[in-house]
Formats: sequence, structure tokens, C-alpha cells
Amino acid sequence: MRVVVPFAAEQPKTRLADVFTPAERRAFARIMLDDVLCALREAGHAPAVLTTAAIDVDAPTVVDDRPLNAAVDAVLEGEESPVAVVMADLPLATPDALARLFAPDADVVLAPGRGGGTSAFVTRHPAFRVDYHGASYRDHCERARDLGATVATVDSHRLATDIDERADLVEVLLHGTGETRRWLDDRGVRLDTSGDGRVTVHRDAAATRRDNGPETG
Amino acid sequence: MRVVVPFAAEQPKTRLADVFTPAERRAFARIMLDDVLCALREAGHAPAVLTTAAIDVDAPTVVDDRPLNAAVDAVLEGEESPVAVVMADLPLATPDALARLFAPDADVVLAPGRGGGTSAFVTRHPAFRVDYHGASYRDHCERARDLGATVATVDSHRLATDIDERADLVEVLLHGTGETRRWLDDRGVRLDTSGDGRVTVHRDAAATRRDNGPETG
Repeated sequence: MRVVVPFAAEQPKTRLADVFTPAERRAFARIMLDDVLCALREAGHAPAVLTTAAIDVDAPTVVDDRPLNAAVDAVLEGEESPVAVVMADLPLATPDALARLFAPDADVVLAPGRGGGTSAFVTRHPAFRVDYHGASYRDHCERARDLGATVATVDSHRLATDIDERADLVEVLLHGTGETRRWLDDRGVRLDTSGDGRVTVHRDAAATRRDNGPETG
Repeated sequence: MRVVVPFAAEQPKTRLADVFTPAERRAFARIMLDDVLCALREAGHAPAVLTTAAIDVDAPTVVDDRPLNAAVDAVLEGEESPVAVVMADLPLATPDALARLFAPDADVVLAPGRGGGTSAFVTRHPAFRVDYHGASYRDHCERARDLGATVATVDSHRLATDIDERADLVEVLLHGTGETRRWLDDRGVRLDTSGDGRVTVHRDAAATRRDNGPETG
């Protein structure tokens, strides 16, 4: 099976601007990509990266600077065999969680992301195409049914957890098993259980200063 | 196995005050409870409700007005056999998802909730006690390990999704299979995919007015 991981090489993770500098956000996106590639390899696959610009990464790359839907559809159009597409911002994805994506024998297997997205899918139907805008999980279900394809859904918190904003970092600190969690630890990102509602994160000021070099002015 | 569902009968779901009136929030909490009880029964269990005040519900009840930790610990202290505790605000819980909670043969089985919580657990260790404050999933893991208990974790988006705030309602509309989803439909709660970020919900004004009766003034 062909396994593809789309990656937005420029200005990634803008909704984390209240936690990280632009340079940190680029590094963070890269380390999440590396974790996803590593988990896919441990699950027995040979992933390729579908990237918007050339990057230095330990995997085959396909560069396509078009928007996500067009770039993924181009991959799907060119393939006879089953294709899996796994998002790059799933640092909780373990080989076990990914094995559950590849296990069902359905024409289309969907792993919903929290908030209506599609974290990952496998398609064995040659006519399946993507639409990542809006509530893409619902739309992908409908498209598959319109094709007469059988659909299976993977019920996984690990695969549902894409990392876009501050609250998502809590999940990495609690459940991460890879380099992304260590990267956050090293940059002083800590669980904050002081509030009344859900747990959040803050940055340890000393670790932040150390990373950014001495303060000036 | 004894299966207990804690329920806060007074002033539930205050973080949904921007979507529902107090009376609606009480009704919403009750319908989620009913969905959880129904799913547990379909999974082959006979759940009891551990409630802070007497309620009219189609299940045995234990009334205990103490805070959650004390009330749950009182249940654990009184039991020789395994005990499962499943939160009442998990309307995505299906019999299949719950079966995964009961399947592992570990001393303590934990289903993490998003944001550090513990959505559900099974304990076969007589000394296991709870602490739902803060990052309770992490704390429950540590407590189990301190007891020398074996621990298993259930990777389920359905069990991880407790419904506390507006964004959580998206998950019910997309993935709900029970009465809670229909209740939201009837009250005009609709997916909103108009924004740039994650999908949210809004209330259909006509449905809202109909529910609340004619406007005055």
C-alpha cells in the first residue's frame, strides 16, 4: 500500500503563535512529521512525504505546491493500488493506533479528527477523492457512500488528536511517546492544572529564555 | 462487575451557559446520562447511578451528596469485586467502545478523557482510589503503579469525548448515535463550518424561539 504524509512546509501551525515563535513552530511541525513517519515505519509501512516545498527528511518526497486537496487528489488519481493518507500533525499516533487504521477490509477507512477533520484514511476505491475543508469527516463519509464504497471508522483518541492550538499540547505531554513530547519538555512546556476547567499548558520562563538566547534591551 | 455512573444532579454543565439555559442544561445532562446507561446495558452490564440528589431514572440509584472523589471512593471501599466507573457525559460511548474498556485483563483499565481527565475506568485492585482533580488520567496511572497494579489504557475518541463546552457539541452532531444527538437536532444546534479554524456549532434562531416560547418585550 502506498502511504503518503502531506506536509505544509511554510508557515506551519499559526494557531500556536501564542506559545511558539515562527522558528519554533517550523521546528515543532518537523518533529511531529518525524514522529508520524517513525510510527508508520514501525507499523510496517514505507511512507512518502507530500510536501509543499523541498525539505530535508529521511523519506522519499513528492513536492507539490498546490493546496492540500489538489495535491492529495493528484496522488489518488495516479495510483491503482490502495493508498493511505496520514496527516503530519499526529504525534500521538503509535504503531498500534495506526495498525487499527490499516486493519479493516472496507473500501474506505476513516480516522476522524477532533472537530470534524479527517486525520487519516485508507482508500481501496479508485474514485475516492478528498475535501479537507470544513467537516471533512462527514463529507468523506458521504463521498464514499455516494461511490457505493463500504466505509469503516477507527475510534482512536490518538488518531483524532491533531495538534493545532495550545490545548492540544496537553495531549502530547500526557500521551506522547515520541520525540515531540521530549521537544516540548526541552522547551519548558509544562502541564498547568491550576485552573478550574480543563488542564492547559504554560511555558517555563527559564527554559524559554534559554532557548531564545539572552534577552536584549 | 459492579458498574457505576456518577451524576451531578444540580447545576450541571455550567460551561455550556453560552449555548443553553439552565433548564436546558439540566435536560441535556439527563439525556446524556440516559444514553450512557443505554450503551452500558447494550454492552451487557447493569449500571447503577451514583447521584448527588434523588432523580427519576430507569436504573438503581445511590444518593451521595459528597464531592465526586469521596462518593466514588465510598463505592470502591464497599466492593470486593471489580468495579467500573463511567462518567455520565459521554454521549458518544457505544457498546463497542465500552466493550474495549471491559476487555483488558489488567488490574486497572483507564479510558483517558480529552484534557487530562479520566472518562472511565475498571479496577480489579481493592486498594485503588480516585482523584478527579486536575490531570486525573496521569494521577490515576501513578496511583495504580504505586499499588503495583497492572495498567491498561483504552485508545478511544468516543470515550475521550466528554461534553463540557460548545466545541464538544460538534462531536455529538458528527459522531453521536443516541438520543443526545436528536435532542441537539430538535433544539436547533447545527454544525457551523463557516470559520477558518475548527468546526463549531450555532443555534438555529427559529428552533431556539420555538423551544423557549414566544418572546416578550
